[in-house]
Amino acid sequence: MFIQGNMLIGQQSVKGNGRLIHAVNPATGERLEPGYGAGDASDVDRACQLAWEAFHIYRRRPQRERAAFLRAVASEIEGLGDALIERAMQESGLPRGRLEGERGRTCGQLRLFADVVKAGEWLDVRVDPALPERTPLPRSDLRQRHIGVGPVAVFGASNFPLAFSVAGGDTASALAAGCPVVVKAHSAHPCTSELVGFAVQKAVQACGLPEGVFSLLFGSGRDLGQALVAHPRIQAVGFTGSRAGGLALMKAAQARPQPIPVYAEMSSLNPVFLLPQALADSAEALADGFVGSLTMGAGQFCTNPGLVVALAGPDLERFMAQAGKMLSGSAAQTMLTPGIHDAYQQGVQQWTSTSAREVARGEMGPESDNACQAALFATTASEFLTDESLHEEVFGSASLVVECQDEAELLDIIDHLEGQLTATLHMADSDAALAGKLMAPLELKAGRILANGWPTGVEVCHAMVHGGPFPATSDTRSTSVGSGAIHRFLRPVCYQNLADALLPDELKQDNPLGVPRLVDGKREV
Amino acid sequence: MFIQGNMLIGQQSVKGNGRLIHAVNPATGERLEPGYGAGDASDVDRACQLAWEAFHIYRRRPQRERAAFLRAVASEIEGLGDALIERAMQESGLPRGRLEGERGRTCGQLRLFADVVKAGEWLDVRVDPALPERTPLPRSDLRQRHIGVGPVAVFGASNFPLAFSVAGGDTASALAAGCPVVVKAHSAHPCTSELVGFAVQKAVQACGLPEGVFSLLFGSGRDLGQALVAHPRIQAVGFTGSRAGGLALMKAAQARPQPIPVYAEMSSLNPVFLLPQALADSAEALADGFVGSLTMGAGQFCTNPGLVVALAGPDLERFMAQAGKMLSGSAAQTMLTPGIHDAYQQGVQQWTSTSAREVARGEMGPESDNACQAALFATTASEFLTDESLHEEVFGSASLVVECQDEAELLDIIDHLEGQLTATLHMADSDAALAGKLMAPLELKAGRILANGWPTGVEVCHAMVHGGPFPATSDTRSTSVGSGAIHRFLRPVCYQNLADALLPDELKQDNPLGVPRLVDGKREV
Repeated sequence: MFIQGNMLIGQQSVKGNGRLIHAVNPATGERLEPGYGAGDASDVDRACQLAWEAFHIYRRRPQRERAAFLRAVASEIEGLGDALIERAMQESGLPRGRLEGERGRTCGQLRLFADVVKAGEWLDVRVDPALPERTPLPRSDLRQRHIGVGPVAVFGASNFPLAFSVAGGDTASALAAGCPVVVKAHSAHPCTSELVGFAVQKAVQACGLPEGVFSLLFGSGRDLGQALVAHPRIQAVGFTGSRAGGLALMKAAQARPQPIPVYAEMSSLNPVFLLPQALADSAEALADGFVGSLTMGAGQFCTNPGLVVALAGPDLERFMAQAGKMLSGSAAQTMLTPGIHDAYQQGVQQWTSTSAREVARGEMGPESDNACQAALFATTASEFLTDESLHEEVFGSASLVVECQDEAELLDIIDHLEGQLTATLHMADSDAALAGKLMAPLELKAGRILANGWPTGVEVCHAMVHGGPFPATSDTRSTSVGSGAIHRFLRPVCYQNLADALLPDELKQDNPLGVPRLVDGKREV
Repeated sequence: MFIQGNMLIGQQSVKGNGRLIHAVNPATGERLEPGYGAGDASDVDRACQLAWEAFHIYRRRPQRERAAFLRAVASEIEGLGDALIERAMQESGLPRGRLEGERGRTCGQLRLFADVVKAGEWLDVRVDPALPERTPLPRSDLRQRHIGVGPVAVFGASNFPLAFSVAGGDTASALAAGCPVVVKAHSAHPCTSELVGFAVQKAVQACGLPEGVFSLLFGSGRDLGQALVAHPRIQAVGFTGSRAGGLALMKAAQARPQPIPVYAEMSSLNPVFLLPQALADSAEALADGFVGSLTMGAGQFCTNPGLVVALAGPDLERFMAQAGKMLSGSAAQTMLTPGIHDAYQQGVQQWTSTSAREVARGEMGPESDNACQAALFATTASEFLTDESLHEEVFGSASLVVECQDEAELLDIIDHLEGQLTATLHMADSDAALAGKLMAPLELKAGRILANGWPTGVEVCHAMVHGGPFPATSDTRSTSVGSGAIHRFLRPVCYQNLADALLPDELKQDNPLGVPRLVDGKREV
């Protein structure tokens, strides 16, 4: 296992014939070797056909084997050792601690899904026993379970080169659902992708699974990505990235003779509401916490707090003064790619052409082409409500404070927000009445509502929702983080009047796998 | 409450200004009064705005009130008495017994969803308690529940003027999910629609719900239907009908600035596989059962057995001889609308221009413009595999027998089928080995697999799946019949670190509603 600059198609290492893709060290501007040749339609076809063949076998392997495979992927990733972390640091500009933490999250996520597979809640087993004596008509025995939808195309995200990339949340949940995965690597971290790809490839072989369970392709989103989504064997798509990118994939998926679901996680301002008493009690502490969340990882998180909403007044002034002070002292950080850096600069520049006023900017430097200054702007609710450009996400450490004259304006802001991943309330006990008024409107705008914390740092657990109304995601019925993510890649199948021997194990009469069941609509205990 | 020829927008009765829609008695060709004026964009807007306003209140009413409302709708429909049945007979040409049964199913469905709402499985409550001592980082308290997506547009189906129309399965499941409904009535049964609409309207008032919980509009699919799907307040669509109609709605839903899910149930051949020993044992009995299923209701069911697949040979000849005999003696039946009748005639006519051979036709007459002759054709597997026109659904009592030379050809047929609602196996004990080989490929093609029965007669229960891969439905992750249908109209919301008082009742710490919960991924008992 060594770096080759190749795609991984099943168990093969394949050099792409297209334009070479080179990672760039965003801190130094250095072009990194090796180059990765972009794949073409024939590579997409080969990977998808292998995935289709593998699907028939993989989906029917016992659940304990599927769980063991997920654990093996986690162990193989850990087995890559420091080489993975070092390469990811070079390719992403992210610091070691962050990447080691992200590796832990990635492997924890794979092991969580191993547990989820075995627990069997995802099967949603339902049994409605036969009622042969029922009048006027008897009822047949009816049983339901869920199965995987088929091969899934996963697009690696730039901002989580491990946890939302080759073996990240989309891949883990698709594999858990019994779906082979074809990954399009993000061009920002090709070698990190290849290394993780080796780990998955090795686990596939070690577990005796068909090779098509996993492939890794390189290429541009417009060419190879579109071809992948259009391939007839692909049955669902997982994507985390820009709104334009997500919309393009949605369009491609709908243009197929057989349209397929796209789970695109795209864009979110993650509004933070500072309620009056909380602001009065702790304006400065809130400002410190806010700047910490805003500047973490150069603000390159889907859940970065890009909007702060509060009632205008001296307490908000205190908050802004302290936030401005903290932010002015915040060191510039290298962003993930030149493209993200450019988009950030343009986004902040665009704010300067609006009525919003600049509150503070972070420090300049270090000497890097892609270092960003954090930025805090402020505007009034009435300006925010009339200027749609202020509703667009600026991906990075930039946030906008919206000053409301009264509660009515604050509620009006919520009504005019697009769909969000998160909404945060900072509240003291005596803010409870206002918080109560905000809950219902916020539920309709966000996938997650949190109190007295910060939206960054998404817990990978059972209750997590990392999703939300459009354009936060393309499909508000889903989450891309946490065990619920498996449901994106499942479909129900009903079995009527089938002999026990023909039924899958999870539906057999004596429940040999001990899976949870709903019998006649009631939970079996 | 009397027939007015009006739309129902909230609690108002509104005359549409557009072209008059008249039902036609398909048995007599008689144009039925009154005419229903088609609504326009302003009617759509009014109904959708009312639905949006109602959504905020309705979704937050206690679940027992939502359940009581569903029961009240059922009682009000029963309270319409024989007037409803008589009008539905006139408008649909369906016989009294069928419509009385369908009314029972409609009301039973509403009451099933009332039970489902109260049982609370649909909430998918998940609780991951705080772990304040966890290292390196503590975990916040995280809780998840599901809420309704928002107002739902429902398109009444022609073939179930009660059970899949104004207060049918789509409406019942959307209301159960907490979503107001705006129905576009099917133009084939406007007065039946208005009567049922009155019943829902009355239940809304009696239960003290906001009027916008339900509206009923008349108009063409191309105009009013498209405007309804495009309306920004509509958040999901339920449709049962033709493939062309479903595809048009999918396109409209994706073209919105905010795309929304469409649940279209469109087209299915419902293949029936007669395995060798079953055919040898009971060719004649199978033929009798088959013709009964095929001709029931003039074959106007989504699950009508439009394809029979078996190994060629004397047993299949016996089956065809008996089926031909039964079918030749089957009385012509009036179809639902002139449009459906024309499409049926064209579909059967089209078969005569293929290599398929005619096995039998049903009787002519009665004297009705819209009476159809049942039709049975046969072809070889190799012809079927090469002629895509034979894969298109002919809606009505027409079926095609496909003769296979061997098991390999039979499996090849399955591989080449489009997505289906159902697949049926007729098998004797000694067919088990072959049946076992068919199970896996059939799971990938159909939402429901049944043995030794007929696909018509869809049970409304918890384990039912009335769905399937495209083009059977637009969204294979769902069912439109049975309690699982509620999931189409729900989305998850996560609550992090919120005080108990701010949490919805179903998430409060002491579980006051007694709903089922997953705590740290484990079922609470």
